[in-house]
Amino acid sequence: MFYNDLRLQYPVKVDTPNPTFARYLQQAIGGIEGEIRVMMQYFFQAWNLPPSMHKYRDMLQQTGAEELGHVEMLATAVALNLEGASTDLKDEAAQDPAVAAALGGQLPRHFLSAGLGAMPVNSHGEPFTAAHVVASGNLAADMYANVMAESTGRTLAARLYQMTDDPGMQDMLRYLLARDTMHQNQWLAVIEELGGVEALHPIPASIPLQEERKAPHVDEMNLQYAFMATGTEPHDGFDGARFTSGPSVDGKGEFSMIDKMEPLGDVPELPEPPPSTFDAPRPQDVAKSGLAKVAQKAKDALS
Amino acid sequence: MFYNDLRLQYPVKVDTPNPTFARYLQQAIGGIEGEIRVMMQYFFQAWNLPPSMHKYRDMLQQTGAEELGHVEMLATAVALNLEGASTDLKDEAAQDPAVAAALGGQLPRHFLSAGLGAMPVNSHGEPFTAAHVVASGNLAADMYANVMAESTGRTLAARLYQMTDDPGMQDMLRYLLARDTMHQNQWLAVIEELGGVEALHPIPASIPLQEERKAPHVDEMNLQYAFMATGTEPHDGFDGARFTSGPSVDGKGEFSMIDKMEPLGDVPELPEPPPSTFDAPRPQDVAKSGLAKVAQKAKDALS
Amino acid sequence: MFYNDLRLQYPVKVDTPNPTFARYLQQAIGGIEGEIRVMMQYFFQAWNLPPSMHKYRDMLQQTGAEELGHVEMLATAVALNLEGASTDLKDEAAQDPAVAAALGGQLPRHFLSAGLGAMPVNSHGEPFTAAHVVASGNLAADMYANVMAESTGRTLAARLYQMTDDPGMQDMLRYLLARDTMHQNQWLAVIEELGGVEALHPIPASIPLQEERKAPHVDEMNLQYAFMATGTEPHDGFDGARFTSGPSVDGKGEFSMIDKMEPLGDVPELPEPPPSTFDAPRPQDVAKSGLAKVAQKAKDALS
Amino acid sequence: MFYNDLRLQYPVKVDTPNPTFARYLQQAIGGIEGEIRVMMQYFFQAWNLPPSMHKYRDMLQQTGAEELGHVEMLATAVALNLEGASTDLKDEAAQDPAVAAALGGQLPRHFLSAGLGAMPVNSHGEPFTAAHVVASGNLAADMYANVMAESTGRTLAARLYQMTDDPGMQDMLRYLLARDTMHQNQWLAVIEELGGVEALHPIPASIPLQEERKAPHVDEMNLQYAFMATGTEPHDGFDGARFTSGPSVDGKGEFSMIDKMEPLGDVPELPEPPPSTFDAPRPQDVAKSGLAKVAQKAKDALS
Amino acid sequence: MFYNDLRLQYPVKVDTPNPTFARYLQQAIGGIEGEIRVMMQYFFQAWNLPPSMHKYRDMLQQTGAEELGHVEMLATAVALNLEGASTDLKDEAAQDPAVAAALGGQLPRHFLSAGLGAMPVNSHGEPFTAAHVVASGNLAADMYANVMAESTGRTLAARLYQMTDDPGMQDMLRYLLARDTMHQNQWLAVIEELGGVEALHPIPASIPLQEERKAPHVDEMNLQYAFMATGTEPHDGFDGARFTSGPSVDGKGEFSMIDKMEPLGDVPELPEPPPSTFDAPRPQDVAKSGLAKVAQKAKDALS
Amino acid sequence: MFYNDLRLQYPVKVDTPNPTFARYLQQAIGGIEGEIRVMMQYFFQAWNLPPSMHKYRDMLQQTGAEELGHVEMLATAVALNLEGASTDLKDEAAQDPAVAAALGGQLPRHFLSAGLGAMPVNSHGEPFTAAHVVASGNLAADMYANVMAESTGRTLAARLYQMTDDPGMQDMLRYLLARDTMHQNQWLAVIEELGGVEALHPIPASIPLQEERKAPHVDEMNLQYAFMATGTEPHDGFDGARFTSGPSVDGKGEFSMIDKMEPLGDVPELPEPPPSTFDAPRPQDVAKSGLAKVAQKAKDALS
Repeated sequence: MFYNDLRLQYPVKVDTPNPTFARYLQQAIGGIEGEIRVMMQYFFQAWNLPPSMHKYRDMLQQTGAEELGHVEMLATAVALNLEGASTDLKDEAAQDPAVAAALGGQLPRHFLSAGLGAMPVNSHGEPFTAAHVVASGNLAADMYANVMAESTGRTLAARLYQMTDDPGMQDMLRYLLARDTMHQNQWLAVIEELGGVEALHPIPASIPLQEERKAPHVDEMNLQYAFMATGTEPHDGFDGARFTSGPSVDGKGEFSMIDKMEPLGDVPELPEPPPSTFDAPRPQDVAKSGLAKVAQKAKDALS
Repeated sequence: MFYNDLRLQYPVKVDTPNPTFARYLQQAIGGIEGEIRVMMQYFFQAWNLPPSMHKYRDMLQQTGAEELGHVEMLATAVALNLEGASTDLKDEAAQDPAVAAALGGQLPRHFLSAGLGAMPVNSHGEPFTAAHVVASGNLAADMYANVMAESTGRTLAARLYQMTDDPGMQDMLRYLLARDTMHQNQWLAVIEELGGVEALHPIPASIPLQEERKAPHVDEMNLQYAFMATGTEPHDGFDGARFTSGPSVDGKGEFSMIDKMEPLGDVPELPEPPPSTFDAPRPQDVAKSGLAKVAQKAKDALS
Repeated sequence: MFYNDLRLQYPVKVDTPNPTFARYLQQAIGGIEGEIRVMMQYFFQAWNLPPSMHKYRDMLQQTGAEELGHVEMLATAVALNLEGASTDLKDEAAQDPAVAAALGGQLPRHFLSAGLGAMPVNSHGEPFTAAHVVASGNLAADMYANVMAESTGRTLAARLYQMTDDPGMQDMLRYLLARDTMHQNQWLAVIEELGGVEALHPIPASIPLQEERKAPHVDEMNLQYAFMATGTEPHDGFDGARFTSGPSVDGKGEFSMIDKMEPLGDVPELPEPPPSTFDAPRPQDVAKSGLAKVAQKAKDALS
Repeated sequence: MFYNDLRLQYPVKVDTPNPTFARYLQQAIGGIEGEIRVMMQYFFQAWNLPPSMHKYRDMLQQTGAEELGHVEMLATAVALNLEGASTDLKDEAAQDPAVAAALGGQLPRHFLSAGLGAMPVNSHGEPFTAAHVVASGNLAADMYANVMAESTGRTLAARLYQMTDDPGMQDMLRYLLARDTMHQNQWLAVIEELGGVEALHPIPASIPLQEERKAPHVDEMNLQYAFMATGTEPHDGFDGARFTSGPSVDGKGEFSMIDKMEPLGDVPELPEPPPSTFDAPRPQDVAKSGLAKVAQKAKDALS
Repeated sequence: MFYNDLRLQYPVKVDTPNPTFARYLQQAIGGIEGEIRVMMQYFFQAWNLPPSMHKYRDMLQQTGAEELGHVEMLATAVALNLEGASTDLKDEAAQDPAVAAALGGQLPRHFLSAGLGAMPVNSHGEPFTAAHVVASGNLAADMYANVMAESTGRTLAARLYQMTDDPGMQDMLRYLLARDTMHQNQWLAVIEELGGVEALHPIPASIPLQEERKAPHVDEMNLQYAFMATGTEPHDGFDGARFTSGPSVDGKGEFSMIDKMEPLGDVPELPEPPPSTFDAPRPQDVAKSGLAKVAQKAKDALS
Repeated sequence: MFYNDLRLQYPVKVDTPNPTFARYLQQAIGGIEGEIRVMMQYFFQAWNLPPSMHKYRDMLQQTGAEELGHVEMLATAVALNLEGASTDLKDEAAQDPAVAAALGGQLPRHFLSAGLGAMPVNSHGEPFTAAHVVASGNLAADMYANVMAESTGRTLAARLYQMTDDPGMQDMLRYLLARDTMHQNQWLAVIEELGGVEALHPIPASIPLQEERKAPHVDEMNLQYAFMATGTEPHDGFDGARFTSGPSVDGKGEFSMIDKMEPLGDVPELPEPPPSTFDAPRPQDVAKSGLAKVAQKAKDALS
């Protein structure tokens, strides 16, 4: 269960409110790179772990709680930046380019739906969706999802940081950058604890590579470790690339290149659909029902 | 630009059609772990790269084209599995548990909207959404997005593989497993080519760690490399964990633990909203307008 | 900021796992009536309140934290119910109606995407969306949103409760029913504290009713307190209804009925779109360009 | 069945077209607070009522038809405001801040997708979604959904009203404000007709409170009527609040406060997932397969 | 404005309720082929038409009102089919394959969220979205959108019709089939009135074909009327096809075939992104910062 | 399977980058009228066709590959237009209307999420959704979906074309206009090959019109070919319209008009919901449980 303290994890001050920056900050709340996503991702990963994984359950849940505190900080930053937002389209105002520009930079629903408050949406105003929350049951896969989330999250924070020279906002973003630095390292540390790249890959490691090799073409063509070229031009640039030669990164094979992939399969032969689908017209229907004649007539008429 | 060959990249056969398996296969077409997602992810990553990154543009685009071929294979597999799907709710059928069970396992729209064909949806019937497509502009972040996509993708393929004993489906899934093996290695190889974990992290490496340290609390508390405990219980289990001590994985700091995080900020003080928001009632409004009296009267009446 | 305790707010036990019930429980996690919605709704309502509303900020935030604990409980309940879920479509299994029926009742992604864990989705497998989160800035409107959320939430809990006779699940649902009872009362109590129905309505009370009366037809037709009949049949059933006569509930008017509403406006006259929209063909285009002749020819040909 | 008259329910005039205001008006068409939502909500509530509720079926359906007329009015207002919208990005125009500002305030799809017409979307351009439509089957819960919809709807209308000084738009918005006043009262009147707060709460009243009290902790801790404090700070501000003491609003209990909630449950014990989920690696897998050694080697190499 | 009559446009009877059929019927309510979509499509097309198009405004609006009556009929059909739906997962029931199968065929939210009523969702339970509503401003394009909607709508009705032998449902579906027959003809009739295929195509006809011919390659290669072969195999099957030879259907050109399309453009040269994007690492960054050395070291360590 | 050439299908140059135009171009990538939609639509239509339809499978697949090349071209155009996009909200910049206006015209995520690259979203920033992809199984219905997609697509291209005077962008858009001209003709040509309007309509033609006539009212009222007037005003404008008299366009009936449609059905009689739905309160519940008295008491208290 959860507890809260009304005070913020880290100070949030805004020296000069900027409603356009409020809009951009929303990406860090409700965007795919944002804090609601990692909060829910860490919680759901934690909640699905059995007792043998208790240590990670505990750790994920604590970092989830930290992230919830980040959502609170960012919501505060948005509300503070909305102070003085323009909500005026009266005739005089509408003709002033500065006012018009200000309105263009704002999210309409910050005023219309939230009365100048933060919302669980991204910088385009799209509501947060849990569709992005990855909790696959496989801890190694989940850790990569977390490294990725914190990498795009820190990239987002860096981009926001360079947009502003507001001292309060810079301070808050530096804190968030620092925590993203830690969290990238934290999930990489779990990957190491679990055995590292060679132990874990290909994920899931619990299905043996031999299973793949039972497919007729897989072993014969080294399809597990070959770069498959589908370009029509020569690609000399790939000679000596890390992904076309040398030992595979997982240490279980040797990279190679299939220089010009050819189809191994045939043109597919699907069953003719039954009449219950009403998938006709089919050419045979046309023939059967005399539609061909009708068609010809229509064609003649149109020419 | 793109070309196609009507033949499949790899043979797709179904020995015993199973409309329920068709539903499960849809996850590999339109799901977040599926092939449309990686196809579009690799293409958009490629299309945003400048000439200096030409090698990766070429490589990403070729693998994108390979993935489009996987979508085609899986669509074929779905259509083949739908042969003979039940579309009968007539009285007699409706009372047969076997028919009812069959219908319960199917996606209604496979029949209603597609006439027994594949759709760009997941196993719950939700349309593919490009919201998941990650092309952040930062190649290192993108590579983690790709490792993650192929890790959850291979986990999905493994789960589908264990559900079926249809020889054709097993053969196809073995091929897809093998290609996911390669692709995990392929993206890890790029991470290596770009300098590996120590060179790339924290992502983006182009914002110097010193920027973070300008925030007053960050350096003093080692907030860049400290695990922040937010649990209310003692967490002895974290002593000696890879993420609480020793050198950080990026080689740029030393892990530590903040045993019990306390708020560094205060209770936030937001501005009072202007009348134009109609955010009242506020307690002061209640006082001003005599609402308090009305409130008391209503309270008396209800008690 | 937030803290967590690994222990659950209330015990969650499952005596006989039932993967179909796991699916139904998801509605209480990620559905519009579910706990993620109220958690986020209370948090965002709190985070947008100024210092004068500190008491409600504190209260909303604490109940938000309580709701997060409910999400955790329900996620645990889902994971426990998924024990032993069928993941087998092998030939023999596929022909057993009991196995087929079991699969039909499950959410495919519980296995495919979560490895038998809970997800932030509803009972149809749709991801939670923050589109439903109401934090309007107007506390009175928000309290109705909360009463409504807890009313549909308790109705959902009651429906789930009658589906199961599992003692563990019944115990957990009784707890959630009880908390919904409290929360309905809690938000109604705030409505009372704010002055009750007469003080608050029409929401927002800060725009005076006189503003409405400035519209030419409003005062003359009592459009503020009249039921507007748009039915073509006589509706004697409405005579004496609470909403057609007597004092209005907000105490500021008298109900009446407009027995047969007639249009007060005209047929709208929109501007002709400029050529830049390419909104043609318009009848005049047809005339100008001689299309009418072409049309006649095509018509002749087809008859 | 339904009929229509080409004339509008209320006059809609625009004196000075303003494409930015057209965008803001869209919130009242396709937004969660908008008219399509209430129209569909009232219709679906009506269509699910049995003969014993005929009076409400009739009433809901008539007000649904009224709301459809509001959608028509607002669509007209949008189209009229789009007259003269800028669609020019040619070089000269692109450098004029006034033109640029105008474009920034507009919805691109008003021009691109609708040729300067209204769309069933909100002010961010998001399509209307029926996900918000509440028709729960429980009439009391539905009436709260309706009060809430009309409260946020009237708040939206008030916000739009203060943005504009166009006489035509002000007149139309006054009409909509007046109708929202009536509809708030109308749904509150039904709540009264159904017995009022004490009769209806906790919703659904048809599950007796005794059911809740069968849970071991509920009766002993008064969990039905206790405010559960989850804050870590003292909360003296709650002493004497309407929601912590005195009779509950539903008249069936006495409010109290649990000053510092403690977990009643334990750390959850989930089953270990079966191998078919490929949820490994788990610590025991690492041990079994010798992955620990591999891990150590990788760790050494990296340090 | 709109009026309603409580009676249905056409009788709706269900002889044997079938909750699985209720689910399938939802596709005709909230699906992309369904009645809410056409209702809203016809209304928004109508509401955006200027006075010169009054006749079509009137006609579209009347057919929109007819479609709203179809939604009402289908909602009634769903509610009637839900009578007796299984809502029991108690132990005994859970083990009965017939009960389990029944539950598998139902939409959980028909019970959980609607108390056995109809919802504005499709057969997968996805809420209706106005994203599909096409009102482009160009009447010719809109008419094709309407023909298409009624064509997929009638195909859906035919599929539903063949699933059931319930006399009441068959009667209702025959009516809907008949109306779709009329509506297909109705929109085709407008296409004819507007001048027919030759007058209208290419849509929009108001941008002259000469504009296209100003592009350097267009006229020289007949890109306006050439089938562009992008297949790698010979495609003799296209010789003599209607789309590779003879006069174009719009009567303004001659069909031809580009047998093997070659790129007319070059490899794109995008600008290098500025540092503010944090899009690095780029190869030159690697070189500059000595990352290459780090990379080599990491590579050595891993091999 | 698929191949790619790094060169573009047609040259893409931008003379003067314009980030606002980049936003507008996104509609042609990820919008409902855009190229990802047609690409996926043609592919899924192709992939569901049986051997008897091989010719169309091949043709659809080749045009799908062509469309993928258009996505690539447009993504390139977006990236080129984003050169020099403003990403500065620093104090000085924030007060410059020109900078503010520029930011207002841009999509925030072009910078925040993509580092100045193209995204699979529309001009409002909404991710592409495959919900629009129509592959119904019925080839005639699908061809109308394709004509419609290319008609709205070409309208979009024309609107974009008139916005810009950038020579490079004009050249590219002329190419896309030309290809849309061909594709409209291509799908119309298939309609002709399949027999034309008279042979195909009403779609699906494989359900005989006699089926409809088995419904009691259909034949007697000519419901298959009658325009159903639901307007309350006289509609003389429809006399002699193509859709109210003369032979139907499909050549199988005679148009007529039902001048004033009256309900053929009754007020629906739904079953009373069982107690398990908790759908009470119902009037009879109020009576039974003495709620009426409570209600009266509450009413008295409030008056």
